[in-house]
Amino acid sequence: MSSNSRGKYFTLTTFGESHGPAMGGVIDGCPAGVTIDLAEIQKDLDRRRPGQSRLTSPRNERDQVEILSGVFEGRSTGSPIGFIVRNADQRSADYDEVKKAFRPSHADYTYDRKYGFRDHRGGGRASARETLNWVVGGAIARQVLTHEQVDTMAWTQRIGTIELAKSEAKFQRIEVEASLVRCPDSQVSAQMEKAIESAQSEGNTLGGCIEVSVNKVPAGWGDPVFRKLHAELGHALFSINAVKAVEFGSGIEGSRSTGKDQNDAFQKVGEAVKTATNNSGGIQGGISNGEPVTIRVHFKPVATIGSTQQSVNQDGEEVSLEVKGRHDACVIPRAVPIVEAMVNLVLVDAMLASKISRIS
Amino acid sequence: MSSNSRGKYFTLTTFGESHGPAMGGVIDGCPAGVTIDLAEIQKDLDRRRPGQSRLTSPRNERDQVEILSGVFEGRSTGSPIGFIVRNADQRSADYDEVKKAFRPSHADYTYDRKYGFRDHRGGGRASARETLNWVVGGAIARQVLTHEQVDTMAWTQRIGTIELAKSEAKFQRIEVEASLVRCPDSQVSAQMEKAIESAQSEGNTLGGCIEVSVNKVPAGWGDPVFRKLHAELGHALFSINAVKAVEFGSGIEGSRSTGKDQNDAFQKVGEAVKTATNNSGGIQGGISNGEPVTIRVHFKPVATIGSTQQSVNQDGEEVSLEVKGRHDACVIPRAVPIVEAMVNLVLVDAMLASKISRIS
Amino acid sequence: MSSNSRGKYFTLTTFGESHGPAMGGVIDGCPAGVTIDLAEIQKDLDRRRPGQSRLTSPRNERDQVEILSGVFEGRSTGSPIGFIVRNADQRSADYDEVKKAFRPSHADYTYDRKYGFRDHRGGGRASARETLNWVVGGAIARQVLTHEQVDTMAWTQRIGTIELAKSEAKFQRIEVEASLVRCPDSQVSAQMEKAIESAQSEGNTLGGCIEVSVNKVPAGWGDPVFRKLHAELGHALFSINAVKAVEFGSGIEGSRSTGKDQNDAFQKVGEAVKTATNNSGGIQGGISNGEPVTIRVHFKPVATIGSTQQSVNQDGEEVSLEVKGRHDACVIPRAVPIVEAMVNLVLVDAMLASKISRIS
Amino acid sequence: MSSNSRGKYFTLTTFGESHGPAMGGVIDGCPAGVTIDLAEIQKDLDRRRPGQSRLTSPRNERDQVEILSGVFEGRSTGSPIGFIVRNADQRSADYDEVKKAFRPSHADYTYDRKYGFRDHRGGGRASARETLNWVVGGAIARQVLTHEQVDTMAWTQRIGTIELAKSEAKFQRIEVEASLVRCPDSQVSAQMEKAIESAQSEGNTLGGCIEVSVNKVPAGWGDPVFRKLHAELGHALFSINAVKAVEFGSGIEGSRSTGKDQNDAFQKVGEAVKTATNNSGGIQGGISNGEPVTIRVHFKPVATIGSTQQSVNQDGEEVSLEVKGRHDACVIPRAVPIVEAMVNLVLVDAMLASKISRIS
Repeated sequence: MSSNSRGKYFTLTTFGESHGPAMGGVIDGCPAGVTIDLAEIQKDLDRRRPGQSRLTSPRNERDQVEILSGVFEGRSTGSPIGFIVRNADQRSADYDEVKKAFRPSHADYTYDRKYGFRDHRGGGRASARETLNWVVGGAIARQVLTHEQVDTMAWTQRIGTIELAKSEAKFQRIEVEASLVRCPDSQVSAQMEKAIESAQSEGNTLGGCIEVSVNKVPAGWGDPVFRKLHAELGHALFSINAVKAVEFGSGIEGSRSTGKDQNDAFQKVGEAVKTATNNSGGIQGGISNGEPVTIRVHFKPVATIGSTQQSVNQDGEEVSLEVKGRHDACVIPRAVPIVEAMVNLVLVDAMLASKISRIS
Repeated sequence: MSSNSRGKYFTLTTFGESHGPAMGGVIDGCPAGVTIDLAEIQKDLDRRRPGQSRLTSPRNERDQVEILSGVFEGRSTGSPIGFIVRNADQRSADYDEVKKAFRPSHADYTYDRKYGFRDHRGGGRASARETLNWVVGGAIARQVLTHEQVDTMAWTQRIGTIELAKSEAKFQRIEVEASLVRCPDSQVSAQMEKAIESAQSEGNTLGGCIEVSVNKVPAGWGDPVFRKLHAELGHALFSINAVKAVEFGSGIEGSRSTGKDQNDAFQKVGEAVKTATNNSGGIQGGISNGEPVTIRVHFKPVATIGSTQQSVNQDGEEVSLEVKGRHDACVIPRAVPIVEAMVNLVLVDAMLASKISRIS
Repeated sequence: MSSNSRGKYFTLTTFGESHGPAMGGVIDGCPAGVTIDLAEIQKDLDRRRPGQSRLTSPRNERDQVEILSGVFEGRSTGSPIGFIVRNADQRSADYDEVKKAFRPSHADYTYDRKYGFRDHRGGGRASARETLNWVVGGAIARQVLTHEQVDTMAWTQRIGTIELAKSEAKFQRIEVEASLVRCPDSQVSAQMEKAIESAQSEGNTLGGCIEVSVNKVPAGWGDPVFRKLHAELGHALFSINAVKAVEFGSGIEGSRSTGKDQNDAFQKVGEAVKTATNNSGGIQGGISNGEPVTIRVHFKPVATIGSTQQSVNQDGEEVSLEVKGRHDACVIPRAVPIVEAMVNLVLVDAMLASKISRIS
Repeated sequence: MSSNSRGKYFTLTTFGESHGPAMGGVIDGCPAGVTIDLAEIQKDLDRRRPGQSRLTSPRNERDQVEILSGVFEGRSTGSPIGFIVRNADQRSADYDEVKKAFRPSHADYTYDRKYGFRDHRGGGRASARETLNWVVGGAIARQVLTHEQVDTMAWTQRIGTIELAKSEAKFQRIEVEASLVRCPDSQVSAQMEKAIESAQSEGNTLGGCIEVSVNKVPAGWGDPVFRKLHAELGHALFSINAVKAVEFGSGIEGSRSTGKDQNDAFQKVGEAVKTATNNSGGIQGGISNGEPVTIRVHFKPVATIGSTQQSVNQDGEEVSLEVKGRHDACVIPRAVPIVEAMVNLVLVDAMLASKISRIS
């Protein structure tokens, strides 16, 4: 698998730099006969788009996807789906300051060490603009997954230290989308908005946590050993820029508890086998058990801050650096559709694998 | 990549069930000319071996590795290294009880749903006995990595709720290995031992946390986008049975802080570029920056407990189940070499990738 | 590896249908720091372009490549190189006839059976227009290979039954390109042109053979067992539409001879180890031995002929079919750069593999 | 994909050197629930075994396979199938002569150049003993393929210049196996035996050709572009030691003909769509069309000959070399089951791919 591809059966390969002519990618392995709704893809891109609210980067990108192949008369043909999204509102001059200097906690220094030189404009390939490619892939993955009723939903659980109390209540997608920060509780949402605005005004930035729940995953998805659902999801989620921790099910809290308290007893509910609790987060032995798959994804605060920082430049001189560019004070609200996309990319791969796990 | 393989350049493929004739695997892509020290491999296997202390499973396995190919006159030839480890002390009859019933929070149910039937003895392929294959692979990976001075060390940071306070002090491997639970602080170690014994006596089990620090990783290892060092390490670590959370650098705590507090300023130390802090955990943009790579890996409590549990069997009947078999009350001490192995498998792959990232 | 990708280290992933908006692809794994000369890529595309002479399809395509990423200030950055080539001169209406009917010896029937339906216009994904993506990839591969002086040259050895006598004479690229059919012998070339024109006038088509010689491949490229240079080249060449046979070195003729006559004795030439003969075609045990790599690639006659044929349609009815569309009576001349591209794609992968085959 | 693995869905990974302790491998991706008949595997190994007749190498190996995992109560479990075959009758001292010198047309020189040193005993990893691993994999692949009635049969078509006339007659497997050289025509078989004995007595060796016909491959197997059935079969067959040419369908002869003569017209035979001729060899556009898949595989003469040859040694000195060791004067008869194995490995992969090519 090349570095810019993911997925064994449903493979997304991507390219593009923040300040190059276009982002884009190829989806290979989408089964033939899936209805591809372009408006649905665009809707997810719009949820990720900069400039969608006063809380996000003012970079103005329409992020309009152009499908170049693989879809004929509204359905996937089985051929690879090529797509591009043109970059439009670039201000490369904003990055002259960092042409030689390395921004702290960015990828400037490490790319330079790896490749010997770098496209410094907007972070080049390390830019989070890459994630729009994943949203395109994830939106198509979702359209395949609807054939099995699988439903992935993510929401903002925490911004900085403002967090949603744990609750058994199930949220509706409409409640999530009603909030500028994608937190389904309107009171907590209001506090989170304030926290972001306050960070913005101080030239500071915040991190946070996104929760995911995937409903109706059939029992039996995921493979043993090195393609465990945990491992594949972990891989996909740690591919997202700024993700520093991932938890499944009861996560760290569960690891402080005991086997007697954590084990999920099996029981019959009508004819179905269910578990009394879901500390496992819907995955046992790396394979789905039919319960909701639950994940928490933690993001570090955005590295681009509005104040002078100490750094070093390519010539090995210490410099003090002030970074321009149009950035978010907190990426969590825009990251919600990105997290959903990555989860859907993993699940569609597991769905296809499940079709060939036994002889029929 | 097949489900039982990992690594693009240095590929480990494994097989084996807990109660089959043997475990084993193939390492493909080990460069020619590496000195292969069998005693070093065996030493790591001994650190993972059941029966190594009163705190671990009494299953008595010598776990002696036999190398079948790829090594000639003490050096790797570039050909695949095949190996097996015979299973010896099996008591398959212990598992008659679970032939039909599904152990809660085990892989019995999910394997059954995926494959239609299962080898029920000792968990079959889902058994943690598989991890000895990884330890063999990791031990060989380590022998390659010594060519670049890379040094991976893991230790027990927490068992249940007993934990090592965060400290800047660097531990020595000898301090870790002096402890039955692999915790380098002798006082905390003693408390942890007690906690495990107490759980044992109650038929209960504990989880915990293992910390890792990798020193001397050169700047520039790891690839962008879908082979980020985070993503590859996350994948490898979530492949370990019972791992439910993984954190890099300042992890969840860092995600509650702000960009101003978290950014790692660059500075010169002599001629070297270093960072003033290491909240990034040695990885920026998915690529190593030359600082120690720091990781925390959280394990759920062992699912096999010594008390009667409610469950369901293959025929869809509710049953109450008491599981025999010889199990650990806490896997953390034995998991330390497993975590090291997985980290080394990822790093050797990144090391090889780094050799072809630019034209020379 | 997905179906539309090839190469482990230098991976080309492609998309596009003959009558869709664009062809395109992603090259992942090109080392950083390689000078990328766009004019060189375009020159290879022009050698493959329809409409380049009276002997080729009159479809008029400029086949202008647009590089979308991965190149900065004239050099590869190590990031994936995305590219597209817009389709322009399509006449989809020409294909109304085959919307339902299956063209004999084309992919219409097999795609229909595989996917349940198909994009019938111009052969969809099965169109040889796909090969322009390979020419782009191969042209970039060649620019990497020049760092090791490797030089791949192909020419037309046979069209129908008109063939170039075997000769030890080495051809110059300029002699090949001086010929409309890319045969370096001007007399044979003239005969071949006549043969194609004669087939054209009869609504018939011809096949033929392309020879390849790769000079200055260092000894030690290629991997044992399943990545033998033979196997990788065979795979790449049999991926080309209409290729029905591939021979290495003395090929079929050599297989009729004996070991005593075929073995290539080693000898010293100055300080270099050379072979007295090159029946092995530069590859022994799947690995290059430093002699020229020699290959013969045989193409069946073009399946689109200018006469009425018996066939069957989607509804299972027998039909008689007359195919329109603008087609070549012989693809050999345009296939020469395609063969070179495939060989270069394989060799650049072997070159990168060779950098990590032993510990330094 | 690592160098010692093949197959995307049904992946065979192998290891072992001729004079090491054992050969072996791992089959990953065999669907659960397939009946695994060990006797069938052993039967194929016996067809490949040295010492099976006076015409083959007298090395005496029982080649008994031991399955180590993945099979439970006679059926595949979906877990990887590990296996080993111990090496027994080694005479490493036979190879002292070639410890430093390079045997002409063998892999000695190229391995040395690639890896810097080599296991010289019996050719090490380059030994054709590796092919027994493929026979194990292929025998299991065949047991999966019987679920779809697919039937692969190969036979000796030519040894040196003695060849079976082309015939439309279908052979029975029993006729093939009745012949010491696996040629189904008893008169031609007798001539072939004589040719081999004559070569043996002169210390010379012969090559030849194996034909394959695969019956009942359903239409729609194989993938476009880089996983065409041609390409995958070509790859697998060129992986076999000594294979120098591969032809599909009417092959080179067909490439000398015209489109009008070569096109395979579609017709109805009852309800089925069939082709009037099968010049395409059962594959169109890289995908099976339901007709028999027909292939010809040409082998060079064995490189180990019984006479003194000129060569060079590791120190760069010219030497004259006489090779001992027990070798076949012609490998064709023993290669028949190897060719079948490789074809079956490719087909089982295509069969699994076909299950996920469209949404159901």
